[in-house]
Amino acid sequence: MFHHSAKLQYPVKVDKPNPEFAMLLQQAIGGIEGEIRVAMQYFFQAMGARGDDRIRDMLMSTATEELSHIEMLGHAVALNLEGAPVSYQEATAKDPVMNAILGGANPRHLLSSGLSAMPVNANGVPFDMSHVYATGNIGADMLANATAEAGGRVLASRLYNWTDDHGMKDFLSFLIARDTYHQQQWLAVIEEMGGMKSQLPIPNSTPEDHENMQHSYYYLNTLLDKEAPKGRWAEGPSLAWISHSTSASTALRL
Amino acid sequence: MFHHSAKLQYPVKVDKPNPEFAMLLQQAIGGIEGEIRVAMQYFFQAMGARGDDRIRDMLMSTATEELSHIEMLGHAVALNLEGAPVSYQEATAKDPVMNAILGGANPRHLLSSGLSAMPVNANGVPFDMSHVYATGNIGADMLANATAEAGGRVLASRLYNWTDDHGMKDFLSFLIARDTYHQQQWLAVIEEMGGMKSQLPIPNSTPEDHENMQHSYYYLNTLLDKEAPKGRWAEGPSLAWISHSTSASTALRL
Amino acid sequence: MFHHSAKLQYPVKVDKPNPEFAMLLQQAIGGIEGEIRVAMQYFFQAMGARGDDRIRDMLMSTATEELSHIEMLGHAVALNLEGAPVSYQEATAKDPVMNAILGGANPRHLLSSGLSAMPVNANGVPFDMSHVYATGNIGADMLANATAEAGGRVLASRLYNWTDDHGMKDFLSFLIARDTYHQQQWLAVIEEMGGMKSQLPIPNSTPEDHENMQHSYYYLNTLLDKEAPKGRWAEGPSLAWISHSTSASTALRL
Amino acid sequence: MFHHSAKLQYPVKVDKPNPEFAMLLQQAIGGIEGEIRVAMQYFFQAMGARGDDRIRDMLMSTATEELSHIEMLGHAVALNLEGAPVSYQEATAKDPVMNAILGGANPRHLLSSGLSAMPVNANGVPFDMSHVYATGNIGADMLANATAEAGGRVLASRLYNWTDDHGMKDFLSFLIARDTYHQQQWLAVIEEMGGMKSQLPIPNSTPEDHENMQHSYYYLNTLLDKEAPKGRWAEGPSLAWISHSTSASTALRL
Amino acid sequence: MFHHSAKLQYPVKVDKPNPEFAMLLQQAIGGIEGEIRVAMQYFFQAMGARGDDRIRDMLMSTATEELSHIEMLGHAVALNLEGAPVSYQEATAKDPVMNAILGGANPRHLLSSGLSAMPVNANGVPFDMSHVYATGNIGADMLANATAEAGGRVLASRLYNWTDDHGMKDFLSFLIARDTYHQQQWLAVIEEMGGMKSQLPIPNSTPEDHENMQHSYYYLNTLLDKEAPKGRWAEGPSLAWISHSTSASTALRL
Amino acid sequence: MFHHSAKLQYPVKVDKPNPEFAMLLQQAIGGIEGEIRVAMQYFFQAMGARGDDRIRDMLMSTATEELSHIEMLGHAVALNLEGAPVSYQEATAKDPVMNAILGGANPRHLLSSGLSAMPVNANGVPFDMSHVYATGNIGADMLANATAEAGGRVLASRLYNWTDDHGMKDFLSFLIARDTYHQQQWLAVIEEMGGMKSQLPIPNSTPEDHENMQHSYYYLNTLLDKEAPKGRWAEGPSLAWISHSTSASTALRL
Repeated sequence: MFHHSAKLQYPVKVDKPNPEFAMLLQQAIGGIEGEIRVAMQYFFQAMGARGDDRIRDMLMSTATEELSHIEMLGHAVALNLEGAPVSYQEATAKDPVMNAILGGANPRHLLSSGLSAMPVNANGVPFDMSHVYATGNIGADMLANATAEAGGRVLASRLYNWTDDHGMKDFLSFLIARDTYHQQQWLAVIEEMGGMKSQLPIPNSTPEDHENMQHSYYYLNTLLDKEAPKGRWAEGPSLAWISHSTSASTALRL
Repeated sequence: MFHHSAKLQYPVKVDKPNPEFAMLLQQAIGGIEGEIRVAMQYFFQAMGARGDDRIRDMLMSTATEELSHIEMLGHAVALNLEGAPVSYQEATAKDPVMNAILGGANPRHLLSSGLSAMPVNANGVPFDMSHVYATGNIGADMLANATAEAGGRVLASRLYNWTDDHGMKDFLSFLIARDTYHQQQWLAVIEEMGGMKSQLPIPNSTPEDHENMQHSYYYLNTLLDKEAPKGRWAEGPSLAWISHSTSASTALRL
Repeated sequence: MFHHSAKLQYPVKVDKPNPEFAMLLQQAIGGIEGEIRVAMQYFFQAMGARGDDRIRDMLMSTATEELSHIEMLGHAVALNLEGAPVSYQEATAKDPVMNAILGGANPRHLLSSGLSAMPVNANGVPFDMSHVYATGNIGADMLANATAEAGGRVLASRLYNWTDDHGMKDFLSFLIARDTYHQQQWLAVIEEMGGMKSQLPIPNSTPEDHENMQHSYYYLNTLLDKEAPKGRWAEGPSLAWISHSTSASTALRL
Repeated sequence: MFHHSAKLQYPVKVDKPNPEFAMLLQQAIGGIEGEIRVAMQYFFQAMGARGDDRIRDMLMSTATEELSHIEMLGHAVALNLEGAPVSYQEATAKDPVMNAILGGANPRHLLSSGLSAMPVNANGVPFDMSHVYATGNIGADMLANATAEAGGRVLASRLYNWTDDHGMKDFLSFLIARDTYHQQQWLAVIEEMGGMKSQLPIPNSTPEDHENMQHSYYYLNTLLDKEAPKGRWAEGPSLAWISHSTSASTALRL
Repeated sequence: MFHHSAKLQYPVKVDKPNPEFAMLLQQAIGGIEGEIRVAMQYFFQAMGARGDDRIRDMLMSTATEELSHIEMLGHAVALNLEGAPVSYQEATAKDPVMNAILGGANPRHLLSSGLSAMPVNANGVPFDMSHVYATGNIGADMLANATAEAGGRVLASRLYNWTDDHGMKDFLSFLIARDTYHQQQWLAVIEEMGGMKSQLPIPNSTPEDHENMQHSYYYLNTLLDKEAPKGRWAEGPSLAWISHSTSASTALRL
Repeated sequence: MFHHSAKLQYPVKVDKPNPEFAMLLQQAIGGIEGEIRVAMQYFFQAMGARGDDRIRDMLMSTATEELSHIEMLGHAVALNLEGAPVSYQEATAKDPVMNAILGGANPRHLLSSGLSAMPVNANGVPFDMSHVYATGNIGADMLANATAEAGGRVLASRLYNWTDDHGMKDFLSFLIARDTYHQQQWLAVIEEMGGMKSQLPIPNSTPEDHENMQHSYYYLNTLLDKEAPKGRWAEGPSLAWISHSTSASTALRL
């Protein structure tokens, strides 16, 4: 079961509130690159984990950490909305140009949430849980997790660039760091299981006779007027472990 | 920040796994009456709470409890899927009637999740976060919370009726009990704030001159061939506190 | 069956069209706090009502009134979009600052709807019907309805603050008034049925032996470093009617 | 504004309740071919209509009729769910085959709605309002309406085939008839405006110099190994009115 | 199967990048009037087509063309985002007014997509595939296709008006032209099959005894205080072919 | 631009049509593990690709191949629906047990699509385009692509197990093979760029001073009553390239 303690995982400060940045931060809460997604993805993977206890524990432990990231971001959004105008009078006092009184803010921060974070992305689209990727196959799920953390760190880095607020930059530098670690954490599970080669093709338990192997090792070029691009995908040994993996990849046109 | 301990909040046992009941239980995870919803609703309300610390703490504390409810339900779904057929051979061995080999299960439990819970409802529709109701107005939010717990207890009671598994009935009797308490918990906040009458109309901070009070106290009958139904809604003193609340409600036809 | 008459329920005037306010008004049409939601919620509850005729009639009658509210809001949006620019030339004539030619408007009012209302919220997200709460349990449904009207009045009050247009203020003061009444209307149904205490816990028909009553009357504190907040939720008699309700609520740490 | 009278537009009877047919009927309520869609589509088109009063009145009048269709279907669903099992005991009494106790019903009719209609389709997916097509262009909107009625009559005809209940067949024969009329009603508007030729291309107000007319009258064959199919689309005069419409259509390969 | 060649179907140039126009163009990619929709609609109709080979080929061929339209629009969006600011410093250098640094752009073009097109509309709402209309009935599907092309041309015409960029105007004039043709292409299928009259009512295969013909030919006036509007919908011969179609339409009040 | 040729990429045969398997196959079309997703994901990545031409060509080429996979699956669904009952009479002739006449099929295959494929998953939920992952960062996008192919092969392997139809097994063995290759294709891009270590942390362009490196290399244990699991994630050198990557990972409790 879950518990809560009062201190944030990392202190969150905002030097100068900025409703537009509050809107941008929403992407890190309710976007597909955001923290609700990883928290719920690891949580559901943990609940479904049936094998190695260490993986299940790690999934649950990091799911729990990601919940704390939502919490920090929720504070960051609220702090950026402190003092935001809640009436026409206030808004026009701040921005005498009549036709853009909201000044780039999410209007629902003003109308719907009472100047607080919402589980939506930077366009105001609510997060939907179909983005919780959990197949029950460890290899597939670890790749999905590394992907999510990669997307998360891309986003956090871009948010870092979109603010000049020292408090926010400090906070984002923490999120960037944790995403750095989490990317490696999930890829380390694949290393623990024998490395990527041993896992490919995912799932590595599919019997060989369920696969039409004539079609397993060529790049298909569907471009009518271009040669297949040369590269590792069309030459050299297979990246996968199974017996037929000695065949080189090639390029083919159907 | 959040923490996790290994024991479930309440033990979850299944006497006889039942994939169809696994599908039904999904409503309590990813349905609008379900636990993801209340966990996230209380969490976002807590992050936005700016006033009385007790309310914010209670919101965060109960959000945390609801996360533990998701966890128990995730286990319940997985236990109900133990031994479920994962191939045509297994399924037809169990069910010789060819045209319904899935036997009422959610096909995605078999195809997508590896016999584990998913953040979807009993129809397989993913939960979407637009159902996190959080306005920043305590009166409105407490009503929303009591509503969510009412829906949750209606659902848990119906699930109780749909199983004859002793383990599941025991587990559901716990959820029913917690929903009993939580309904009162949120209504008690309204009592703390002076009672429902003091809160109505919500928000009770709207200035009187923002309201066209001629239209505040009559039942409008839009039925062409029926009298307005008689009852408390059309007679007796107002349920709200404000000065004009001495006027009786009446029925009107426009 | 339904009928229509030409006059609006209340006159809608706009002194000075404002495309940005048209965008904000959309929240009252297609937001979760909006009029499509209440119209459809009461309508579906009415169609499912099997008991007291008065409740069913009231649900259908007020559903019908809410359809008329959508109608008024649709007019309000169209009036606010009168004369809005529909080309780059018009827009830049109004706003010489090149990089914000839309001036805070919803671009789809200009591109998709022909300067008319759409069934979307202030972020342009379409309303989805999962927000029609209707369980068939009167207690749960009346709470859901009071919640919806509370959210509606919070929104209408905030919209009132976001305009200085006399026509719009007058129109919103009418909506605020009707939300005042409707909150009480649904709570009056609970009073008619014997008051909140008689309904709690909802559903009040769940047999006592379906509930593990040891867990029905304590506040669970999941906060590791905070005391349970003191208040009505942790002391005093139960708010519910059933036999065991004499036990006082308490706070507990698991 | 809207009003309501007690009688259904057409009597709805069910000889023998059938929960599976209740699930199928949901497609006619909350499917894209369903009645919520047409009611809301005509309603929003009416609210946006700025030109010919007759069209606006017809849109509002038929929107109102479609609301009455939702109402009839809601009754039809509720009648088909009368006496449906609400517990494991009842269900297994009806169906001794253990692994499909729900017997093809929508589980949420049993768990969520209290044996009543919901605003969802036959898969339980909630209707979302993005399907309200309303561009403000009469030609485009009338085509959209005829399309909706065509889809509606295809569905009603298929539902007719999926039941042997005399009550349901009678009810569906009424819906089929109204869809017959409504298809013609909207196409008659196009006839009123001068016929299809005068409207094409829609919108017929786009200035000729906004169109690269070299590309306006040929069928483009993107199939590498097939001739362009011969037919009216590749020969004969244009179906559109504008000056260049005398050029014949042809087939082309890029 | 599908193939690709390097040249765009029509050249796409942007004279002066404009992030706000990039946002508007998204409606033509991921809006309900957009190209993903028609590509997928024709593709799914083609896969389901069982009758006349010419129709199936045409559906597949034009689906393929529409994929090329998505491709052109994707380039147009990317070109409009060239040089867009990706940091606070860049943005404020361009726009010294602090409170609207994004200047009307879609924030997710900056945060999520790396200055590229996304499958979303102008509000940032992702396209959902429920808008792929395909019933298997040719009459209904051709009307749906003509409707989609009508909506598409309305949108392209409005986009044309919202830019003063010569490159973009040239590109849009091509899309406008193709929509002109495609509207006629699908209506020509109906002409091939004997004309609209022979198809109405859609589906024209519903047996006459499945229809309650008393209700097939009258306009129902649900407006209490207005006469039924006079027009082709209430007088003259039926637009449909079937035997009973000689009866004139009339207006009726229930 | 795109082109089409008549032959399927691989022949699709069904020995014995099975409407229930048609429903399962939908997951491979419209599920998050399905072919619409990869086709659109690679397509949008290709349109946004600004660097190495080989990657852009490969993305476009494989997007095109995935469109051909949708096409094959569409045929597979239609073939499995051949001869499916379209009326109550047919259905009950096949299945005399009254209460499950649809026999596990998707009711919308029968009601909505005319026995054809739809862009929905195995629960009938439409695909939504938010699942097109495309950040513009090659490392992140290649991981996302390998993840998608891993999910796809897990699904295809499970579908293989759920059928005893030789035609379907043969077809699925082809899809399994192509997923084998595509997993390696995208990982080979990472190898081309210098290997995973050179890419980590993704994005590898974030300046070191944007990251709070104290927090970049420890596993955080949020489990109160469990030790941090030992493993590669908590010991050994970093998997990432950057200067600080020599520090070993460790486990920490906050």
